[in-house]
Amino acid sequence: MKADILIKNGIIVTMDKNDSVYENGFVGIKEDRIIYVGREKIDAERIIDAKGGIVLPGLINSHTHIPMSLFRGIAEDIPLKEWLEKVIFPIEKRLSAELVYTGSLLSCAEMIMTGTTTFCDMYIFEDEVAKAAKKTGMRCIISEALYDFPSPNYGSVENGFRYTEWLIEKWKDDPLVNPAVGPHTLYTCSEDVLKRANEISLKYSVPLIIHVSETEEEVKKIRERYGKKPFEFMESLGMLRENTIAAHCIHVDEEEIRLISKYNVKVVHCPECNMKLASGIAPVSEMLKEGICVCLGTDGCASNNNLDLLCEMDTCAKLHKIRKMDPTEMPAKEVLKMATIYGAKALGLDHVIGSIEVGKKADIIIVDSNRPHLLPMYDPYSNLVYSAIGDDVIFSIINGKIVMEERRLLTVDLSHILREVKKWEARIKEWIS
Amino acid sequence: MKADILIKNGIIVTMDKNDSVYENGFVGIKEDRIIYVGREKIDAERIIDAKGGIVLPGLINSHTHIPMSLFRGIAEDIPLKEWLEKVIFPIEKRLSAELVYTGSLLSCAEMIMTGTTTFCDMYIFEDEVAKAAKKTGMRCIISEALYDFPSPNYGSVENGFRYTEWLIEKWKDDPLVNPAVGPHTLYTCSEDVLKRANEISLKYSVPLIIHVSETEEEVKKIRERYGKKPFEFMESLGMLRENTIAAHCIHVDEEEIRLISKYNVKVVHCPECNMKLASGIAPVSEMLKEGICVCLGTDGCASNNNLDLLCEMDTCAKLHKIRKMDPTEMPAKEVLKMATIYGAKALGLDHVIGSIEVGKKADIIIVDSNRPHLLPMYDPYSNLVYSAIGDDVIFSIINGKIVMEERRLLTVDLSHILREVKKWEARIKEWIS
Repeated sequence: MKADILIKNGIIVTMDKNDSVYENGFVGIKEDRIIYVGREKIDAERIIDAKGGIVLPGLINSHTHIPMSLFRGIAEDIPLKEWLEKVIFPIEKRLSAELVYTGSLLSCAEMIMTGTTTFCDMYIFEDEVAKAAKKTGMRCIISEALYDFPSPNYGSVENGFRYTEWLIEKWKDDPLVNPAVGPHTLYTCSEDVLKRANEISLKYSVPLIIHVSETEEEVKKIRERYGKKPFEFMESLGMLRENTIAAHCIHVDEEEIRLISKYNVKVVHCPECNMKLASGIAPVSEMLKEGICVCLGTDGCASNNNLDLLCEMDTCAKLHKIRKMDPTEMPAKEVLKMATIYGAKALGLDHVIGSIEVGKKADIIIVDSNRPHLLPMYDPYSNLVYSAIGDDVIFSIINGKIVMEERRLLTVDLSHILREVKKWEARIKEWIS
Repeated sequence: MKADILIKNGIIVTMDKNDSVYENGFVGIKEDRIIYVGREKIDAERIIDAKGGIVLPGLINSHTHIPMSLFRGIAEDIPLKEWLEKVIFPIEKRLSAELVYTGSLLSCAEMIMTGTTTFCDMYIFEDEVAKAAKKTGMRCIISEALYDFPSPNYGSVENGFRYTEWLIEKWKDDPLVNPAVGPHTLYTCSEDVLKRANEISLKYSVPLIIHVSETEEEVKKIRERYGKKPFEFMESLGMLRENTIAAHCIHVDEEEIRLISKYNVKVVHCPECNMKLASGIAPVSEMLKEGICVCLGTDGCASNNNLDLLCEMDTCAKLHKIRKMDPTEMPAKEVLKMATIYGAKALGLDHVIGSIEVGKKADIIIVDSNRPHLLPMYDPYSNLVYSAIGDDVIFSIINGKIVMEERRLLTVDLSHILREVKKWEARIKEWIS
């Protein structure tokens, strides 16, 4: 069969079950799917020359709040509670669909240009996030944040449930946008809200996304309120299952790790955000050893402050080496799995993405290796995790479509987005002045 | 006076004593010096439009081993002792002047392209490092590593002293290359070698560069051998003074911090290398509080694995927040000081570089702010430390000379360097196969 696109002259890092790597390999794409991976040249309409670069599955950012890019660097070096309550929440009261759409476009541009092809989002006005993803050509999971206090989008939580169901109905058959349910946290949602969110997730068979045990204070609050540890409490509500995606999981003990493992709950680790807000270091090595699927997220870039997963992988590897005082911890290949195939598993999309294998959707990026900080190359995993940065990504293909070519975004006008961002910057500066 | 170069339309982050920032500011350069900083336009031969970007002092990498870029990623995720003894030392036995020169050119290219204008190096065949710096137009401090075992460059340590003095005589009047003396560590040098290295440093009034207390094992060894803590031992040899540059200083106790402070010894912190090799986390906050000048280094990029100081700053800020479990620790501005003015102080060059001030040498970089991950900009310090990466640097000026323009290296042919690097990669692969 003739391919639409053939990538040639690359080191194909497949991230398949055998960790297959093809030096001087080829990847063939037909419509939205991968039809060939191997060492032979096949016929194709168009050839992309990887010029010796690394060809790998598109990176998966498994936890973020993409519209928050408009708040990048707005309040720094202060405690989490103060950051949330004094800066983020008051600004978020003034959120609008327009702001969310522009912030989402900005983040999608950044993500595509730094190698991310799929993201998992929770925020407000999430329909706008979906629209921005469609516009830019990204794959995503979207969830409207549900909590007890009024939302600038849906008002009362009652409307929040309606909005969530509307969102699910609207997007459930889309090839790129996957809806989910997003109760914010165990402490910002009442027990009733948690139960009802859980029911919607079960009713539609969509993921349940929630922040769990990000801070010690939050764990204390749950124990005081319910007399249970956070994951015990979630178990009692029937919230633990394989399509539950729990972000952070920093302050979890051995018993909770066993619970997470028992129910095959997915964990998203956000090392840079957790470091920046001094929330703690998640016991990722212990969770991986228990067979838990732990993947990688940047969190919102108001607390990171970028969406660059190549840099995030580097920090992740190094953070866990120093945490365990053991340089053999968290080797490069494992970290790359967290940002690709484990992410796909966590989002329930591993039959579709996460590796370069025949039959999967073509979400593929090419990293230029012909740059001073990426030579020599003795091991592609090492160079990807420890040396590469987002700017090294030169091609990005999502669902078989080229969305970035030689670092030029093809789906949107980047300069137009940046002009819109500057307008919002001026408005937001007024709000906080 | 008419300037040779005027930078316009930038946010001038001066890093001077008052932390002056000029929005829409101008910087005038005449020959090798800064002749104007302020809000007025002055006459100039050539104008560089910063297009709203951030104009800041060139970054200073205060501890590295630049030829080791040729060993980037050669052995990963293994213990420091094994990394040094089984991989690095055996390869280093085969070192040659040619290898060192090519590795140095590669690193200089990477450093210039990621915003570093000055580096402080310790390695073998250091004259080649100096030549590569001259070729590329970088400012540097060079020191030949001295230790008890035979060197592939100078053979016996006796010759090492001769080589060091020859190097000092050769380069001491150079405008960009500054020689120093480099006893490797307290445990790889005998007491006699340390004393003689110290004497040469005093004789020529050049810095004394040494690795101190990078690992616990090393501290134990010194205590067993000499019955003293590392800094006590150095004090007994007269090695503690204001032009002593001590890299790492991870396993130092309160008494030693007081010694470092008392003698105004300079400390170089290398967070990414220390994390990757799981050496430990230096008590930087405690040292800064004692008034110690702590600056930033990447270390060699075989243990990092790049020379990107913009990424290093981000990791530094986040690492110390998590170490102290306090998000207010190590704010962005302080970290930027470590990579600029504190670096200049540490290297004894703060009368010359480290800030944008009239009379100082013109070592200046421009960071493009018109990129998805650098907008909005509420605070330039925050965006520089938490969001920027090396690729954001678009102009680099060293000693008044433009060495990179719109990301194009002007002093050397990058593609030629990369071709030479690939030849060495092939040879080194044979050595380790």
